[in-house]
Amino acid sequence: MIQFNVLYPRTEGGRFDHAYYRDKHMPMVAQKLGSACRYYTIDKGLAGGAPGAPPPYFAACSIACDSVESLQQAMAPHAKAIKADVPNYTDAQPVVWISEVVVQRS
Amino acid sequence: MIQFNVLYPRTEGGRFDHAYYRDKHMPMVAQKLGSACRYYTIDKGLAGGAPGAPPPYFAACSIACDSVESLQQAMAPHAKAIKADVPNYTDAQPVVWISEVVVQRS
Repeated sequence: MIQFNVLYPRTEGGRFDHAYYRDKHMPMVAQKLGSACRYYTIDKGLAGGAPGAPPPYFAACSIACDSVESLQQAMAPHAKAIKADVPNYTDAQPVVWISEVVVQRS
Repeated sequence: MIQFNVLYPRTEGGRFDHAYYRDKHMPMVAQKLGSACRYYTIDKGLAGGAPGAPPPYFAACSIACDSVESLQQAMAPHAKAIKADVPNYTDAQPVVWISEVVVQRS
């Protein structure tokens, strides 16, 4: 199993519409990816590591897929539409990375 | 449910011992946290978002807990020992953040 991960770095005065992300954007992405998306998770930033520190990220998501190939195949035809929706919920510059799930809910 | 998340930013020439992290460090952390740790996940960086880009992170983990309070209570007595083990598997500077799980395996 691999994951397509997106982190949204928090900026002072930046915006992130958590309701839109949860209710519109991510369901749209999952619908477009179809069965290639095994499941997805959404996290909302609460705090940083140091006491009283703000969260370094507004939010993050991870989309689980069987393989990098199945992810890329499912994503390619929809990447443009998915990216076009981003300004509807944030002005953050997303950081994307692909990972191998080494331990899943140990 | 909340998560304690750690990201290990990748550096050129930096080191990360994935076997040690999976087999020694994270089981030790889970053992110390006891029942406060509901489960944890480990991800290993495979690639970045752009074609051919290296992963921005060596690895990441997320530790799921019932609340920030239960996490802090369980972590406090062991934070020093946990931090002291980090140089045994990496020279990366970990980024820590705490998140609320908004959608869990949708």
